[in-house]
Amino acid sequence: MTTPRSRLTPEREAELYDAVLDLLREVGYDALTMDAVAARTRASKATLYRQWGSKAELVVKAMRHSKPVHAADIDTGSLRGDFEAMIERTDDCQMEKDSALMRGLFQAVHTSPDLHQALRELLVEPEMTGLEAVLRRAVERGEVRPDHPALPYVVHMLIGAFVTRELIEDRIPDRAFLSEYLDAVVLPVLHT
Amino acid sequence: MTTPRSRLTPEREAELYDAVLDLLREVGYDALTMDAVAARTRASKATLYRQWGSKAELVVKAMRHSKPVHAADIDTGSLRGDFEAMIERTDDCQMEKDSALMRGLFQAVHTSPDLHQALRELLVEPEMTGLEAVLRRAVERGEVRPDHPALPYVVHMLIGAFVTRELIEDRIPDRAFLSEYLDAVVLPVLHT
Repeated sequence: MTTPRSRLTPEREAELYDAVLDLLREVGYDALTMDAVAARTRASKATLYRQWGSKAELVVKAMRHSKPVHAADIDTGSLRGDFEAMIERTDDCQMEKDSALMRGLFQAVHTSPDLHQALRELLVEPEMTGLEAVLRRAVERGEVRPDHPALPYVVHMLIGAFVTRELIEDRIPDRAFLSEYLDAVVLPVLHT
Repeated sequence: MTTPRSRLTPEREAELYDAVLDLLREVGYDALTMDAVAARTRASKATLYRQWGSKAELVVKAMRHSKPVHAADIDTGSLRGDFEAMIERTDDCQMEKDSALMRGLFQAVHTSPDLHQALRELLVEPEMTGLEAVLRRAVERGEVRPDHPALPYVVHMLIGAFVTRELIEDRIPDRAFLSEYLDAVVLPVLHT
């Protein structure tokens, strides 16, 4: 199958994204160059820039591509079910890889405004919108009261679980841990 | 007042620590050198190494020194009072400075095992011990039930508030925000 020069096949795009994430885990964001991506994937730099415009955009799109399910697509009929589905969408091995990526990006986010903006637009905002939809439906079903003071802080609770597990406990957050945290913290506070 | 050569006066030590933190905010951990500290403080490198042994130890001791009150010293008689005292011990301006430091250290922690270990021993563990004491006393007073499943996750909730405010919302966590979070999330879950 041939495609016009300006478009990549979905398979080729997926292959490029995988290579970008591998490189990112190996060398970190700052040391990642478009040259290295081009060499690793046998693509031309012109193709990479035509398709993605910047390193920040390429990296963030590669990260977004690696998430098979987005919070916005989840609707199981209960708050617990929706949260569990958010945990289930990423297996433990992938979670370990994601953690390695996040570490490499933490500092880069503060030195590269392009990366910060791309992360915000392409990854953070869609996830926040998805989480807001999950919570809105829980309110509509009567599971959580509409004026619950903890609603604006669900994202703080969830991200805290991830980051603390990583930075303080030096352990990768896995599904079992997130599931326990959900039952011990997030669901009890929302159900008060 | 003269002191033996091998000891610094507390005033001189405080002056050195302040200079280290200023440098850290200016250039970050990786770019911080003992030479720069020596130049800024008009101290000899020999003195710095005799007193602290390594850059990691100097940086972490400087951070620890900047905290006027430690969680371990707090005991107000109620869980809310203890948490509020933990928030009150750092003013908003100091919190902004601390945030800048934490950003600079996030990545360095993962590339410097010395720094990671020093942070853990000198900063994280004493704070964790202090927080555990605060929670243990709340259990002893009957404010929180001893088998409460959220007890091991209080640190995750608290750190989540800080990090998310910074990374997702792009705002400095201030006292007003932490106080709201305490009332909306941490205290309600512990009181269930």
